[in-house]
Amino acid sequence: MEKDILLAWIEEGTVNIPSILFTNYKRMGLNETDIMLILQVYSFQNKGNSFPTPEELSSNMTITSGECASILRKLVQQGFISIEEGNTTEDILFEKYSLKPLWLKLLDCLQEEKKQSQRQQSSFNEN
Amino acid sequence: MEKDILLAWIEEGTVNIPSILFTNYKRMGLNETDIMLILQVYSFQNKGNSFPTPEELSSNMTITSGECASILRKLVQQGFISIEEGNTTEDILFEKYSLKPLWLKLLDCLQEEKKQSQRQQSSFNEN
Amino acid sequence: MEKDILLAWIEEGTVNIPSILFTNYKRMGLNETDIMLILQVYSFQNKGNSFPTPEELSSNMTITSGECASILRKLVQQGFISIEEGNTTEDILFEKYSLKPLWLKLLDCLQEEKKQSQRQQSSFNEN
Amino acid sequence: MEKDILLAWIEEGTVNIPSILFTNYKRMGLNETDIMLILQVYSFQNKGNSFPTPEELSSNMTITSGECASILRKLVQQGFISIEEGNTTEDILFEKYSLKPLWLKLLDCLQEEKKQSQRQQSSFNEN
Repeated sequence: MEKDILLAWIEEGTVNIPSILFTNYKRMGLNETDIMLILQVYSFQNKGNSFPTPEELSSNMTITSGECASILRKLVQQGFISIEEGNTTEDILFEKYSLKPLWLKLLDCLQEEKKQSQRQQSSFNEN
Repeated sequence: MEKDILLAWIEEGTVNIPSILFTNYKRMGLNETDIMLILQVYSFQNKGNSFPTPEELSSNMTITSGECASILRKLVQQGFISIEEGNTTEDILFEKYSLKPLWLKLLDCLQEEKKQSQRQQSSFNEN
Repeated sequence: MEKDILLAWIEEGTVNIPSILFTNYKRMGLNETDIMLILQVYSFQNKGNSFPTPEELSSNMTITSGECASILRKLVQQGFISIEEGNTTEDILFEKYSLKPLWLKLLDCLQEEKKQSQRQQSSFNEN
Repeated sequence: MEKDILLAWIEEGTVNIPSILFTNYKRMGLNETDIMLILQVYSFQNKGNSFPTPEELSSNMTITSGECASILRKLVQQGFISIEEGNTTEDILFEKYSLKPLWLKLLDCLQEEKKQSQRQQSSFNEN
C-alpha cells in the first residue's frame, strides 16, 4: 500500500519553475496571488489542459472564479500571458494560454541585471 | 551577448515543485501568500541558503519582513515547516528550515485521495 | 530570431531524472547503454508517445533498432520495465511501457542503503 | 520507516536534463557512454562537487577510471566541456568543469533545426 503512494507521488510529477521567476516577479509588478494563478495555469498545461477555466483554476485556490477571471484579464492586458489559437488534427479551432510573454519579460530582467552589474564593474574600475 | 543571457537562464536553474502541492494546498488550509513564502524558502535552500531571514524573503515578495516573520511562525506552529539543527564540518551549530513536514502532509493527502476513490469504486460495485 | 531559439529551448522542457538512478544503476546490473535506452523511453513518454518503437528509439541513439529491440526485451525480462495495457476514451486497446518496476527497484536500493548505514552506526556504537 | 524512504527519495532530488540533449547527442558525434559520463559530471555538480575525479565518476559507472579520464580528455578537446578556474571566498584557486560549451552546441542544433524547417516551408510554398 505505502509503495502505491510513492509511485503515485513519482507519477504525479513536478512543475519546474525558472528560479529567476521567484526573484523577479515583484519587480515586474506582480503579487503572490498573480504568480500562483500563473503557476496554476502552467500546472494545468503540464497535465494536458491548455486552457483551464476560471472555475477549474479557482477550485485549487482560495480566490473565487470571478477573481480568477478578473486577474487573468489583467495579466493578458498587461502582457504577461497571451491567448493563442490552435488547430486540432481534426481541424477544430481551439484557444490556449501561452506563457511566452512572461518568459520574454524574465529574459529582459536577466539582461537588465547583467547590464547593471557591468556598469557597476566599469565605474568601479574607473575609480 | 544574447547567448550570455541564455546561459545565465540555464545556469540559474529551476525550482521543481511536486504537482500535488498545487492541487492540495487549499485543502490543507494554506493560502497563496503562505505557499509563495514556502516556495521562496525552498528556492533559497536550492541556492545554498538553508535559513533565509525574513528580510531576505521579503526582498523578493510584496509583503513586509514583519509579515514574513509572522507567517513563518504560523507555518512552524501548524506543522508545515520545522526548524532543524545542524553541525558544520567545523562543528559549529546552525539552524535550518526543513520542509519534511509539508512533504509528509502531501503524502497523507495522496493516501486520503486513494482511499476515497477506492470507497467510491466499491460502493459503485455494490449497487 | 535569437529570442525564438530561447523560447524553443524553454518550451522543449526538461527530463527530470531521480538523482539516485545515476548512483545506483551499476549496482542494479545495468550499463550506460541500458540506462540511455530507458531515458529515451522516458523522454518519448514525456512528449506523449507512451510506446515508442525500436526504430524511433534508435533514431536518437548510436545503436541499431535491432539492438534496441533486444535490450528492451532484456529489460522487460529482468523486471526493469513492464508493458501495460490501456484503453483510450474511444475504448481502443493500446500498449505502453511502464517504468514503475524501475522506480520500485530504486526504492529498494534506498532502503538497503539506509539499513546498511544503520548497521554500521550500531556496530560503531557497540565498539 | 517506509515514510523515511519516501523523504529520502524527495530529498535526493532530480537531475533536470534539457529534452533536446536526448534528441541531438548522436548528431553531435557523442555516444551513450559519453553522454552518461557528462550526466554523471552534471549530477555531481548539482550535489556541490564541481570537479569530480575519474575515480569518483567511475564508481557510479561500468567503465574504469582510466576510461573516464580518457573520455573526459576527449570531451574537453572536442569542445563539449571546459575546465574553468574559480576563487573560493578565502581566495584559494580551484578548477571546475563547465558544461556551457555543451549548452551552446545544443542551441546551435535548435537554430539549425529552425532554419531547415523554414527552408522546407518556403520551398513548399514556392511549388
